[in-house]
Amino acid sequence: MDIASYITGFVEGEGCFCVSFNLRSKLKTGIEVRPSFSVSQHKRNAKALEVVQDYFQCGGIRYSSRDHSYKYEVRRIDDLQKVIIPHFKKYRLIGGKADDFDKFILVCDMVAKNYHRNNHRLVEIIELAYDINQGRRKINKEKLLKHLAR
Amino acid sequence: MDIASYITGFVEGEGCFCVSFNLRSKLKTGIEVRPSFSVSQHKRNAKALEVVQDYFQCGGIRYSSRDHSYKYEVRRIDDLQKVIIPHFKKYRLIGGKADDFDKFILVCDMVAKNYHRNNHRLVEIIELAYDINQGRRKINKEKLLKHLAR
Repeated sequence: MDIASYITGFVEGEGCFCVSFNLRSKLKTGIEVRPSFSVSQHKRNAKALEVVQDYFQCGGIRYSSRDHSYKYEVRRIDDLQKVIIPHFKKYRLIGGKADDFDKFILVCDMVAKNYHRNNHRLVEIIELAYDINQGRRKINKEKLLKHLAR
Repeated sequence: MDIASYITGFVEGEGCFCVSFNLRSKLKTGIEVRPSFSVSQHKRNAKALEVVQDYFQCGGIRYSSRDHSYKYEVRRIDDLQKVIIPHFKKYRLIGGKADDFDKFILVCDMVAKNYHRNNHRLVEIIELAYDINQGRRKINKEKLLKHLAR
Protein backbone atom coordinates (compact mmCIF):
# COMPACT_ATOMS: atom_id res chain seq x y z
CA MET A 1 0.00 0.00 0.00
CA ASP A 2 1.20 3.47 -0.86
CA ILE A 3 0.18 5.48 2.19
CA ALA A 4 0.45 8.88 0.45
CA SER A 5 -2.10 7.84 -2.19
CA TYR A 6 -4.30 6.25 0.48
CA ILE A 7 -4.35 9.60 2.35
CA THR A 8 -5.41 11.50 -0.77
CA GLY A 9 -8.18 8.96 -1.41
CA PHE A 10 -9.37 9.20 2.18
CA VAL A 11 -9.44 12.99 2.03
CA GLU A 12 -11.25 12.87 -1.33
CA GLY A 13 -14.17 11.32 0.48
CA GLU A 14 -14.06 12.92 3.90
CA GLY A 15 -11.71 15.86 3.89
CA CYS A 16 -12.44 19.56 4.05
CA PHE A 17 -10.38 22.58 3.05
CA CYS A 18 -12.14 25.28 5.00
CA VAL A 19 -11.80 28.97 5.66
CA SER A 20 -13.94 30.14 8.55
CA PHE A 21 -14.55 33.63 9.89
CA ASN A 22 -15.38 34.96 13.32
CA LEU A 23 -16.29 38.46 14.38
CA ARG A 24 -13.62 39.74 16.79
CA SER A 25 -13.97 43.34 17.86
CA LYS A 26 -10.39 43.43 19.15
CA LEU A 27 -8.92 42.87 15.69
CA LYS A 28 -8.28 45.84 13.39
CA THR A 29 -10.51 44.44 10.65
CA GLY A 30 -13.05 43.16 13.17
CA ILE A 31 -12.87 39.74 11.51
CA GLU A 32 -10.74 36.73 12.32
CA VAL A 33 -9.79 34.47 9.39
CA ARG A 34 -9.10 30.81 10.05
CA PRO A 35 -8.04 28.45 7.27
CA SER A 36 -8.07 24.80 8.27
CA PHE A 37 -7.74 21.35 6.83
CA SER A 38 -9.85 18.67 8.49
CA VAL A 39 -11.08 15.12 8.13
CA SER A 40 -14.01 13.77 10.16
CA GLN A 41 -14.91 10.20 10.90
CA HIS A 42 -17.40 8.29 13.02
CA LYS A 43 -15.84 7.03 16.27
CA ARG A 44 -15.89 3.41 15.10
CA ASN A 45 -13.48 4.32 12.32
CA ALA A 46 -11.39 6.84 14.25
CA LYS A 47 -8.22 4.77 13.86
CA ALA A 48 -8.01 5.92 10.26
CA LEU A 49 -7.57 9.50 11.52
CA GLU A 50 -4.55 8.44 13.57
CA VAL A 51 -3.01 7.14 10.37
CA VAL A 52 -3.54 10.57 8.79
CA GLN A 53 -2.03 12.35 11.81
CA ASP A 54 0.96 9.99 11.86
CA TYR A 55 1.50 10.65 8.19
CA PHE A 56 1.38 14.45 8.37
CA GLN A 57 3.06 14.72 11.80
CA CYS A 58 1.08 17.82 12.68
CA GLY A 59 -2.45 18.81 13.69
CA GLY A 60 -4.70 17.35 16.36
CA ILE A 61 -7.62 14.96 16.78
CA ARG A 62 -10.65 15.90 18.87
CA TYR A 63 -13.97 14.33 19.69
CA SER A 64 -17.34 15.91 19.04
CA SER A 65 -20.02 14.49 21.32
CA ARG A 66 -22.65 16.26 19.19
CA ASP A 67 -22.36 13.78 16.33
CA HIS A 68 -20.17 11.07 17.94
CA SER A 69 -17.41 11.77 15.49
CA TYR A 70 -13.72 12.49 15.61
CA LYS A 71 -12.09 15.28 13.68
CA TYR A 72 -8.47 15.54 12.62
CA GLU A 73 -7.64 19.19 12.08
CA VAL A 74 -4.65 21.30 11.05
CA ARG A 75 -4.93 25.05 11.66
CA ARG A 76 -1.37 26.38 11.89
CA ILE A 77 -0.69 28.30 8.70
CA ASP A 78 2.90 27.07 8.73
CA ASP A 79 1.79 23.41 8.82
CA LEU A 80 -0.80 24.07 6.13
CA GLN A 81 1.79 25.64 3.85
CA LYS A 82 4.74 23.35 4.51
CA VAL A 83 3.03 19.99 5.03
CA ILE A 84 -0.60 19.80 3.90
CA ILE A 85 -0.51 21.84 0.67
CA PRO A 86 2.69 20.21 -0.70
CA HIS A 87 1.16 16.76 -0.15
CA PHE A 88 -1.97 17.53 -2.15
CA LYS A 89 0.05 19.28 -4.85
CA LYS A 90 1.99 16.06 -5.34
CA TYR A 91 -0.91 13.61 -4.80
CA ARG A 92 -3.75 15.48 -6.47
CA LEU A 93 -7.40 15.16 -5.56
CA ILE A 94 -9.57 14.13 -8.49
CA GLY A 95 -13.15 15.30 -7.88
CA GLY A 96 -14.68 18.73 -7.27
CA LYS A 97 -12.65 19.01 -4.08
CA ALA A 98 -9.56 19.71 -6.21
CA ASP A 99 -11.09 23.10 -7.10
CA ASP A 100 -11.64 23.84 -3.40
CA PHE A 101 -8.03 22.94 -2.77
CA ASP A 102 -6.72 25.33 -5.45
CA LYS A 103 -8.65 28.22 -3.90
CA PHE A 104 -7.50 27.14 -0.44
CA ILE A 105 -3.87 27.48 -1.58
CA LEU A 106 -4.56 31.08 -2.61
CA VAL A 107 -6.21 31.90 0.73
CA CYS A 108 -3.32 30.37 2.70
CA ASP A 109 -0.81 32.36 0.62
CA MET A 110 -2.68 35.57 1.37
CA VAL A 111 -2.99 34.79 5.08
CA ALA A 112 0.73 33.89 5.29
CA LYS A 113 1.46 37.36 3.83
CA ASN A 114 -0.82 38.92 6.46
CA TYR A 115 -3.22 40.20 3.80
CA HIS A 116 -6.12 39.33 6.10
CA ARG A 117 -5.15 42.31 8.27
CA ASN A 118 -5.92 44.70 5.45
CA ASN A 119 -9.59 45.50 4.79
CA HIS A 120 -9.24 45.66 1.02
CA ARG A 121 -7.37 42.38 0.77
CA LEU A 122 -9.67 40.74 3.27
CA VAL A 123 -12.57 41.26 0.87
CA GLU A 124 -10.68 39.15 -1.70
CA ILE A 125 -10.11 36.44 0.91
CA ILE A 126 -13.79 36.41 1.85
CA GLU A 127 -14.87 36.15 -1.80
CA LEU A 128 -12.49 33.23 -2.38
CA ALA A 129 -13.45 31.49 0.86
CA TYR A 130 -17.19 31.64 0.23
CA ASP A 131 -16.54 30.07 -3.14
CA ILE A 132 -14.94 27.08 -1.41
CA ASN A 133 -17.50 26.06 1.16
CA GLN A 134 -20.93 27.02 -0.04
CA GLY A 135 -23.75 26.42 2.41
CA ARG A 136 -22.66 25.43 5.94
CA ARG A 137 -21.84 28.97 7.09
CA LYS A 138 -22.39 30.57 10.49
CA ILE A 139 -22.19 34.09 9.07
CA ASN A 140 -23.38 34.81 5.54
CA LYS A 141 -21.08 36.64 3.13
CA GLU A 142 -23.14 39.81 2.91
CA LYS A 143 -23.17 40.22 6.68
CA LEU A 144 -19.41 39.68 6.81
CA LEU A 145 -18.65 42.20 4.05
CA LYS A 146 -21.00 44.72 5.64
CA HIS A 147 -19.22 44.28 8.96
CA LEU A 148 -15.93 45.05 7.23
CA ALA A 149 -17.26 48.18 5.55
CA ARG A 150 -18.30 49.88 8.78
CA MET B 1 -0.19 8.38 -7.45
CA ASP B 2 -0.94 4.74 -6.80
CA ILE B 3 -4.60 4.46 -7.79
CA ALA B 4 -5.19 1.16 -5.91
CA SER B 5 -4.15 2.77 -2.60
CA TYR B 6 -6.16 5.89 -3.43
CA ILE B 7 -9.27 3.71 -3.91
CA THR B 8 -8.78 2.02 -0.53
CA GLY B 9 -8.35 5.42 1.14
CA PHE B 10 -11.48 6.75 -0.55
CA VAL B 11 -13.50 3.73 0.51
CA GLU B 12 -12.13 4.01 4.07
CA GLY B 13 -13.95 7.29 4.34
CA GLU B 14 -17.05 6.80 2.26
CA GLY B 15 -17.47 3.13 1.41
CA CYS B 16 -20.00 0.62 2.67
CA PHE B 17 -19.97 -3.15 2.74
CA CYS B 18 -23.64 -3.86 3.18
CA VAL B 19 -25.94 -6.84 3.37
CA SER B 20 -29.57 -5.88 3.02
CA PHE B 21 -32.70 -8.00 3.31
CA ASN B 22 -36.13 -7.77 1.75
CA LEU B 23 -39.23 -9.79 2.44
CA ARG B 24 -40.17 -11.70 -0.73
CA SER B 25 -43.05 -14.11 -0.41
CA LYS B 26 -42.14 -15.84 -3.67
CA LEU B 27 -38.80 -17.06 -2.33
CA LYS B 28 -38.62 -20.34 -0.41
CA THR B 29 -37.13 -18.69 2.67
CA GLY B 30 -39.38 -15.62 2.27
CA ILE B 31 -36.31 -13.41 2.50
CA GLU B 32 -34.09 -11.97 -0.20
CA VAL B 33 -30.43 -11.41 0.71
CA ARG B 34 -28.50 -8.70 -1.09
CA PRO B 35 -24.82 -8.09 -0.39
CA SER B 36 -23.48 -4.92 -1.95
CA PHE B 37 -20.45 -2.71 -1.99
CA SER B 38 -21.13 1.00 -2.41
CA VAL B 39 -19.56 4.44 -2.19
CA SER B 40 -21.63 7.61 -2.02
CA GLN B 41 -20.60 11.13 -2.81
CA HIS B 42 -22.20 14.55 -3.12
CA LYS B 43 -22.89 15.48 -6.73
CA ARG B 44 -20.15 18.12 -6.78
CA ASN B 45 -17.59 15.38 -6.19
CA ALA B 46 -19.18 12.67 -8.34
CA LYS B 47 -16.18 12.51 -10.66
CA ALA B 48 -14.32 10.58 -7.97
CA LEU B 49 -16.92 7.80 -8.29
CA GLU B 50 -16.17 7.47 -11.99
CA VAL B 51 -12.55 6.88 -11.07
CA VAL B 52 -13.66 4.06 -8.77
CA GLN B 53 -15.88 2.54 -11.47
CA ASP B 54 -13.09 2.78 -14.07
CA TYR B 55 -10.77 1.07 -11.67
CA PHE B 56 -13.05 -1.85 -10.80
CA GLN B 57 -14.61 -2.15 -14.27
CA CYS B 58 -17.90 -3.32 -12.84
CA GLY B 59 -20.91 -1.92 -10.96
CA GLY B 60 -23.01 1.14 -11.71
CA ILE B 61 -23.45 4.76 -10.64
CA ARG B 62 -26.87 6.19 -9.89
CA TYR B 63 -28.25 9.46 -8.64
CA SER B 64 -30.37 9.90 -5.56
CA SER B 65 -32.47 13.06 -5.73
CA ARG B 66 -33.35 12.57 -2.06
CA ASP B 67 -29.95 13.70 -0.81
CA HIS B 68 -28.43 15.05 -4.06
CA SER B 69 -25.78 12.38 -4.01
CA TYR B 70 -24.39 9.80 -6.38
CA LYS B 71 -23.82 6.21 -5.41
CA TYR B 72 -21.43 3.76 -7.00
CA GLU B 73 -22.68 0.25 -6.29
CA VAL B 74 -21.65 -3.33 -7.04
CA ARG B 75 -24.28 -6.02 -6.39
CA ARG B 76 -23.37 -8.98 -8.59
CA ILE B 77 -21.96 -11.68 -6.33
CA ASP B 78 -19.47 -12.65 -9.01
CA ASP B 79 -18.09 -9.10 -9.23
CA LEU B 80 -17.97 -8.87 -5.44
CA GLN B 81 -16.02 -12.10 -5.16
CA LYS B 82 -13.69 -11.74 -8.13
CA VAL B 83 -13.06 -8.00 -8.18
CA ILE B 84 -14.04 -6.13 -5.02
CA ILE B 85 -12.99 -8.58 -2.31
CA PRO B 86 -9.56 -9.38 -3.84
CA HIS B 87 -8.78 -5.66 -4.04
CA PHE B 88 -9.47 -5.04 -0.35
CA LYS B 89 -7.64 -8.19 0.64
CA LYS B 90 -4.55 -6.82 -1.08
CA TYR B 91 -5.02 -3.14 -0.14
CA ARG B 92 -6.40 -3.49 3.38
CA LEU B 93 -8.65 -0.99 5.08
CA ILE B 94 -7.25 0.32 8.35
CA GLY B 95 -10.12 1.50 10.56
CA GLY B 96 -13.19 -0.23 11.98
CA LYS B 97 -14.41 -0.79 8.45
CA ALA B 98 -11.83 -3.58 8.06
CA ASP B 99 -13.90 -5.66 10.53
CA ASP B 100 -17.02 -5.05 8.45
CA PHE B 101 -15.12 -6.16 5.40
CA ASP B 102 -14.01 -9.44 7.00
CA LYS B 103 -17.61 -10.30 7.87
CA PHE B 104 -18.73 -9.23 4.41
CA ILE B 105 -16.31 -11.79 2.87
CA LEU B 106 -17.97 -14.55 4.92
CA VAL B 107 -21.48 -13.47 3.84
CA CYS B 108 -20.47 -13.36 0.16
CA ASP B 109 -18.91 -16.82 0.46
CA MET B 110 -22.13 -18.16 1.93
CA VAL B 111 -24.30 -16.46 -0.69
CA ALA B 112 -22.07 -17.76 -3.51
CA LYS B 113 -22.65 -21.27 -2.12
CA ASN B 114 -26.42 -20.63 -2.10
CA TYR B 115 -26.56 -20.98 1.68
CA HIS B 116 -29.09 -18.12 1.76
CA ARG B 117 -31.68 -20.50 0.30
CA ASN B 118 -31.52 -22.68 3.37
CA ASN B 119 -33.39 -21.46 6.47
CA HIS B 120 -30.81 -22.70 8.96
CA ARG B 121 -27.87 -21.16 7.10
CA LEU B 122 -29.78 -17.98 6.45
CA VAL B 123 -29.97 -17.39 10.21
CA GLU B 124 -26.14 -17.38 10.27
CA ILE B 125 -26.08 -14.89 7.39
CA ILE B 126 -28.55 -12.61 9.16
CA GLU B 127 -26.54 -12.72 12.40
CA LEU B 128 -23.33 -11.82 10.55
CA ALA B 129 -24.99 -9.11 8.45
CA TYR B 130 -26.56 -7.33 11.42
CA ASP B 131 -23.14 -7.29 13.02
CA ILE B 132 -21.80 -5.35 10.02
CA ASN B 133 -24.26 -2.50 9.65
CA GLN B 134 -25.70 -1.68 12.99
CA GLY B 135 -28.43 0.93 13.00
CA ARG B 136 -29.69 2.02 9.57
CA ARG B 137 -32.00 -0.97 9.04
CA LYS B 138 -35.41 -1.08 7.38
CA ILE B 139 -36.31 -4.37 9.08
CA ASN B 140 -34.96 -5.17 12.53
CA LYS B 141 -33.22 -8.48 13.14
CA GLU B 142 -35.86 -9.94 15.43
CA LYS B 143 -38.60 -9.31 12.87
CA LEU B 144 -36.50 -10.91 10.16
CA LEU B 145 -35.67 -14.02 12.21
CA LYS B 146 -39.32 -14.36 13.25
CA HIS B 147 -40.36 -14.16 9.61
CA LEU B 148 -37.96 -17.03 8.82
CA ALA B 149 -39.28 -19.20 11.66
CA ARG B 150 -42.88 -19.19 10.45
